[in-house]
Amino acid sequence: MKTFIALDWGTSSLRAALLDSGGAVLEQWHSDEGILHVPAGGFPAAFQRIVQGWPVESGMLCLASGMVGSRQGWQEAPYCPCPAGPGELAGRIAWLPDAPSGARLGIAPGLCTNHCGMYDVMRGEEVQVFGALELLSRDSGTFVLPGTHSKWVRVRQGRIEAFSTFMTGEVYGLLRRHSILARTLPQDDGALDESAFLRGVMHARQAGSLLHGAFAARTASLFDQLAPAALPSYLSGLVIGEELRAQHLENSGAELVLVGAPALTQRYELALRTLGLHSSSLGDEATWRGLWSLAQKLEPA
Amino acid sequence: MKTFIALDWGTSSLRAALLDSGGAVLEQWHSDEGILHVPAGGFPAAFQRIVQGWPVESGMLCLASGMVGSRQGWQEAPYCPCPAGPGELAGRIAWLPDAPSGARLGIAPGLCTNHCGMYDVMRGEEVQVFGALELLSRDSGTFVLPGTHSKWVRVRQGRIEAFSTFMTGEVYGLLRRHSILARTLPQDDGALDESAFLRGVMHARQAGSLLHGAFAARTASLFDQLAPAALPSYLSGLVIGEELRAQHLENSGAELVLVGAPALTQRYELALRTLGLHSSSLGDEATWRGLWSLAQKLEPA
Repeated sequence: MKTFIALDWGTSSLRAALLDSGGAVLEQWHSDEGILHVPAGGFPAAFQRIVQGWPVESGMLCLASGMVGSRQGWQEAPYCPCPAGPGELAGRIAWLPDAPSGARLGIAPGLCTNHCGMYDVMRGEEVQVFGALELLSRDSGTFVLPGTHSKWVRVRQGRIEAFSTFMTGEVYGLLRRHSILARTLPQDDGALDESAFLRGVMHARQAGSLLHGAFAARTASLFDQLAPAALPSYLSGLVIGEELRAQHLENSGAELVLVGAPALTQRYELALRTLGLHSSSLGDEATWRGLWSLAQKLEPA
Repeated sequence: MKTFIALDWGTSSLRAALLDSGGAVLEQWHSDEGILHVPAGGFPAAFQRIVQGWPVESGMLCLASGMVGSRQGWQEAPYCPCPAGPGELAGRIAWLPDAPSGARLGIAPGLCTNHCGMYDVMRGEEVQVFGALELLSRDSGTFVLPGTHSKWVRVRQGRIEAFSTFMTGEVYGLLRRHSILARTLPQDDGALDESAFLRGVMHARQAGSLLHGAFAARTASLFDQLAPAALPSYLSGLVIGEELRAQHLENSGAELVLVGAPALTQRYELALRTLGLHSSSLGDEATWRGLWSLAQKLEPA
């Protein structure tokens, strides 16, 4: 394999990378052309805008992961049921019949799991987890991918056994922008106030439910326990603390691997350290490694 | 005491009643003139619009409860700390110096409580609880007042010992109108689908956190487990079920008293029955009885 193009095509953003034959990133590209911003029938043109300037030749392998494989995306790549490893993903790639520039363009499927009748799904994070396993030379562990919809992923012997979604980032935004708390919080989040954040993390555990805990962001302001500028950090601690509370990590000795944007993984590291838990973090490199290593599993065309 | 006027003046609505000397309701009045809809300086005029047609004479006792006593209301009636009974409320009424029509108009204080550094507050519900105690001839119990901000209130020997707020109604609205779930849910809630509602209640317990559980409303639709028309009921079950989960009611044998609008208390009754718990319900009558009985404790002017 020569150079390879990896695409992380999500709901609200699109990232792409040109990789060499050893998996090293040669160039990266980023835009807000997430699938919600691509007009009907606009995927081929969006793809060409990304790869222009890159040496795309006929038959060149390009792999995409994320919501681009959903019903609302370019072409549906149906969910693959858990447990699933890179082999299952490679076997279920949805190939685009007429990819632009003659590229051999495939979309990796997402995963689904079912726990006592409740389904859960993800698209894109599974590739990041497989990339993280390779980068860390591990085959098991618990992986956390914080974000709008955080994912907690359990891996054993190289395969994802089960996972859970937490709408943490989205609920933070809802409470912050649209709830009664919006009246008290300042316009901008500002820099992280670590002390207020950790207070939120501890209060979340004590509250037992975010439905109750979130109200403390209102009373903390009413009783002048926190300055308005500290409230966004406190609320962030309340929602992230709620996500952690629900994992029952106490005395688990779990060593978690966080995968995501540093601004976010740093908050989780801070919260976990306060709860006495160790964690390590990876960023974009897990995505590119995951897609590259998936490409290695594919037969040449 | 002759006739008496009771006002339940909240954030988004205003209810009033004219009561006879025995506490029987002679007339009721309702408008959406909650404190958020009253312009600056507009409280006296709003009061006069309510009582016009009623026999208000100089010195006539009128008592109001609810957010009208907050900093954003007509006149602040500072929070009374728990434990507190009707006696404490009566002693801390904020009297309006120049009430319209020469009425003797007072605003009951709300209550505050502090559990391990987290404050909680309520305004209005404490009056409903004291009214419910009288109507049921009880002096202890757990009272639930469902709503935008549900209150769980623990009473012993006629006094409120502690309480907790759950932002259940508000979070339902946020998820329903502003989250990713809004794309899947139909425009209108429609009639309650009991089966979907109870499925939500049970899933909430299983999920352990609404941050996780709410995502099931998305996957239930993705995997055609529920018809779109059933999703609002399912989501309602998820948020009410989360509120109940956090109470740890299992095997408690608790007998709860629900106070609120029948459309809402019926949902809680249904959920509680499924969890093997008994409950009884009261409506507006608790508010009017609470304010009337507070009036009995006041010295004549």
